[in-house]
Amino acid sequence: MKNFKTEELEKVLKTRFFISQTASIYGGVAGLYDLGPTMFGFKQQLLEVWRKMFVVEENLLEMESSILLPYNVLKASGHVDRFCDILICDEVNQLSYRADHYITEALEKKKNNKNKNEIEEVLKRVDCMSCKEIDEVMAKYNIKTPDGNNFSKATNFNLMFGTTIGFNPGQQVFLRPETAQGQFLNFKKLYESNFRKFPFGSATIGKAFRNEISPRSGLLRVREFDQAEIEYFVAPGKKDFKKFSTVKDLQLPLHFKDSDHLMVLGEAVEKGIIANEILAYFIARTYLFLVRIGMDPKLLRFRQHKEDEMAHYASDCWDCELFSSNGWVECVGIADRSAYDLTCHSKASKVDLTFKTVLEKPYEVTRWTPVLDKKKFIRTLKNKYESFKTSVEALSAEWCEENRKTRKDVSSFINYEFEGQVFEIDVEKQVRKVVEENHIPDVIEPSFGIGRILTILLEHTFYVRESGRSSFKLPSYMCYTKVMISYLIHNEAYEEYIEELTKQLKERDIVCVYNRRSCSIGKKYVYSDELGIPFFVTFDDTFIETKTVTIRERDSMQQIRVKIEEVPKVISDMLSCRDAFPSLKEFGEII
Amino acid sequence: MKNFKTEELEKVLKTRFFISQTASIYGGVAGLYDLGPTMFGFKQQLLEVWRKMFVVEENLLEMESSILLPYNVLKASGHVDRFCDILICDEVNQLSYRADHYITEALEKKKNNKNKNEIEEVLKRVDCMSCKEIDEVMAKYNIKTPDGNNFSKATNFNLMFGTTIGFNPGQQVFLRPETAQGQFLNFKKLYESNFRKFPFGSATIGKAFRNEISPRSGLLRVREFDQAEIEYFVAPGKKDFKKFSTVKDLQLPLHFKDSDHLMVLGEAVEKGIIANEILAYFIARTYLFLVRIGMDPKLLRFRQHKEDEMAHYASDCWDCELFSSNGWVECVGIADRSAYDLTCHSKASKVDLTFKTVLEKPYEVTRWTPVLDKKKFIRTLKNKYESFKTSVEALSAEWCEENRKTRKDVSSFINYEFEGQVFEIDVEKQVRKVVEENHIPDVIEPSFGIGRILTILLEHTFYVRESGRSSFKLPSYMCYTKVMISYLIHNEAYEEYIEELTKQLKERDIVCVYNRRSCSIGKKYVYSDELGIPFFVTFDDTFIETKTVTIRERDSMQQIRVKIEEVPKVISDMLSCRDAFPSLKEFGEII
Repeated sequence: MKNFKTEELEKVLKTRFFISQTASIYGGVAGLYDLGPTMFGFKQQLLEVWRKMFVVEENLLEMESSILLPYNVLKASGHVDRFCDILICDEVNQLSYRADHYITEALEKKKNNKNKNEIEEVLKRVDCMSCKEIDEVMAKYNIKTPDGNNFSKATNFNLMFGTTIGFNPGQQVFLRPETAQGQFLNFKKLYESNFRKFPFGSATIGKAFRNEISPRSGLLRVREFDQAEIEYFVAPGKKDFKKFSTVKDLQLPLHFKDSDHLMVLGEAVEKGIIANEILAYFIARTYLFLVRIGMDPKLLRFRQHKEDEMAHYASDCWDCELFSSNGWVECVGIADRSAYDLTCHSKASKVDLTFKTVLEKPYEVTRWTPVLDKKKFIRTLKNKYESFKTSVEALSAEWCEENRKTRKDVSSFINYEFEGQVFEIDVEKQVRKVVEENHIPDVIEPSFGIGRILTILLEHTFYVRESGRSSFKLPSYMCYTKVMISYLIHNEAYEEYIEELTKQLKERDIVCVYNRRSCSIGKKYVYSDELGIPFFVTFDDTFIETKTVTIRERDSMQQIRVKIEEVPKVISDMLSCRDAFPSLKEFGEII
Repeated sequence: MKNFKTEELEKVLKTRFFISQTASIYGGVAGLYDLGPTMFGFKQQLLEVWRKMFVVEENLLEMESSILLPYNVLKASGHVDRFCDILICDEVNQLSYRADHYITEALEKKKNNKNKNEIEEVLKRVDCMSCKEIDEVMAKYNIKTPDGNNFSKATNFNLMFGTTIGFNPGQQVFLRPETAQGQFLNFKKLYESNFRKFPFGSATIGKAFRNEISPRSGLLRVREFDQAEIEYFVAPGKKDFKKFSTVKDLQLPLHFKDSDHLMVLGEAVEKGIIANEILAYFIARTYLFLVRIGMDPKLLRFRQHKEDEMAHYASDCWDCELFSSNGWVECVGIADRSAYDLTCHSKASKVDLTFKTVLEKPYEVTRWTPVLDKKKFIRTLKNKYESFKTSVEALSAEWCEENRKTRKDVSSFINYEFEGQVFEIDVEKQVRKVVEENHIPDVIEPSFGIGRILTILLEHTFYVRESGRSSFKLPSYMCYTKVMISYLIHNEAYEEYIEELTKQLKERDIVCVYNRRSCSIGKKYVYSDELGIPFFVTFDDTFIETKTVTIRERDSMQQIRVKIEEVPKVISDMLSCRDAFPSLKEFGEII
């Protein structure tokens, strides 16, 4: 499929300033990258397609939340305790390594005919092991450091970047590890914004951060990255989805139970392979999005997570994996997070994050309830009474029943502490009619790794021609700069025409660039192709007389000759072709 | 001008989820905010206008750089040492305050007829004082803490957020305090991308961070904020600018030397009030941009920084200030940073950040130059010779001359240390013909505070009607959601038509929202106006028979009746009016 060496692509990415390691003039920082104008342009176009296909199409509420998040949010979400990789450390020189990577390399070398199957079983599980299991594997296979030293016990290393906000002493905050949390925290407001109707989704495009232990492979594993995340909120249990009918006949490459299956989505849902219609719908939309931006559909699959591989919050998860020179790479995760996050935040913040539904069949419940002697307490508490009352009324039936048992006798009271003081309250059994129910919604989360998608998109669309020159077969709507303008030999007389042409293209929102280098036109074509620019307009010797220029199309390398004043319209028409790659002969005679 | 109370606007911003303090369910974090869908929509539209008027119009190279920046970058740029506010701290209870704010409040109270002028002089300078000056003012006016205690000596507090990247021990990094640095670090690559031609600019839109001591006033002083920064690189001294002619007749409110002047830009440059044409050009473009997005031109001025007020890198600086309920607020800074940053980075990184120009008149120079005995050194250094040679050749003439003096006699050598070893090299006077010159370019930087602009834009466009209802008079191209669709009374028969209408609007890239609440149509209009949505489509009782709906325009509150199938085209036509506020009567009979 791929007709080039990885180095050839890497050379273009580097010399043409697609990406550059951060602070490269200072030696660079591992895992941090800057995007040059061309790559940034691709990213913008990619996000525009994403917004159209997700935000606009699904009426998502796009919002933005802060990158800095306080400790208690990430404690509640589980990230403080569980967002870790395991480190192993040389007992002698203190050098540390990421355990799963180190063990994988070490065991690959130790593999032989006898232990092959056994080792492969270990390798399958190594990235989900606990510290204890890692220690056991290290001992069993006698894994040493590169210097032959022993490793000390494996330890958890939290991947979040922490800092302090404010001063004296300030408050601990983290750089968010995912954009999702900001959406969960605003669930109630989003719900209001959607007129209190389910299902609905929100979306955020933004930066997230992970202090990766071993950043590598360009934009594939970095410490600062772009996510586009959707949180789709659904009433619990209601995961059938009207729009699923629009995609149910789509046949997709699914990978589950260690094997590949080409399967129609409707069937996959019916058989319970994909947990529900909403998950399946977003799997389909993800596929359509990736193909639309130019990804090779043959190098794409959806892989189901195994039980022990899922993130701490997920109940079912499918990764969209794209094949690249680094093998299959996870680029989109589509997870059913159930009610995990909202439940955690509701408990930790003590704020109600439920929504109400009216019951078709109301019913009665009997429960232990606190009873207050209002007059007595108002006398004692005065203007603090209201907050005391709220606090008491929030006591659970379980608390009331439990504490009731601690009373000396039936006539005595329960002790309840409020603002450091102890009060005596009573409880009684009450019968209550339940007419509505509170629920915490489930959440389906499609999460896109934008940097990874971009990197692999460039791999899928890059190719080397017979001439040895390279280009990107990217759809024109994915290219920010649409036109390069230049000349065979510079002539001052061209300038006013180029200025006017540029102006007219801009009026049509067509971004163009004027190449003023004095090199050969061949070199300029090569440069333009390497930047993925779809069209090249050339002023040549005949211009002065004929007032015509040539338009060259990037993929076919064909050219047509067009009157200068018609260029904006012709290019505009070519760009509005729904085809990714317009055919020049519809617009003029090929020369 | 303003016909509302600040609280009325704040109420809309809060209840309609324009903004919300970060992690509000956990009590919130001072200085951090989330943007809800409506506010985020305005921001997107604002950035789209910005991109068109700056990136596309000026052919800027838009790029993206990482938020995390290593210590040495920010040490070189001066931020580690000088990006500080001054703190004063209660000697007894250790509570800290921002010195300039505390002194301002304290002195305002101490002002009387006798000391008025003197105190006002102090107040003018208080935000540029050194720690020593602050201590002097505190002593002179006997300023105490709120508890009547003494303050300890004033100290500098660095406003950058620091964290550690990697592990064991890791590397110190900061969250960038401005997006500019990432552009400076990539100057050479950007220069290449612009075909090595001057002048040219780059741009970055992105987050920056400052650990403000006293965050306040919603989005006006926050700890995480959006910047849109342009770095315009010019050959030193060449600050005349061809396109300045397009704006030179523009008359703008300039504020300098403590007074206001309405002045034509051409005159301001001629008189040397604005330092050069490029600065003046960007002042003009900034003005045109702000008016285009809907800002009130009467509440806008450009204020020149005083000598002692300028940032450590600036040589001339104009702030665009917008008038708001918080007084005049700096929203855009247009600074001449001269060659400051590139010079700092070049020195610190030891990487050449100059560009070459060919001299019209070559000349000769005599300078001390190192001389190497090639054969001898190759024998000693082997494959290290090349890097040794590069290192020696980079020695300055000053170094050679200086060290020449340290020699015992004319025939002995100079000691030169390379990779821990000392080598003997010779120097000699050489005459060299200079045909080209190296320069570090100057930089003009227009820097936009997006959050501040957005906040004040809402103030400038918000108004309360006679009915007591409020709305935003925002140009329709500034509104992300263009249409709200609803009904007088719900009828199941509308659903398929609403679905089809929604689909057709989406095909024209017109974002709409379907309001399914069952409240009165009046309440829905209020809601739609409060979100700034330009058009409202209503299905009423006549629909079933006539297949017509009404379209209501937000500002005039006028309505026209239109056939359902014509709605997409009519709305599309109204949106493509160049006027910010289309007149309905051109599109149908007012009802």
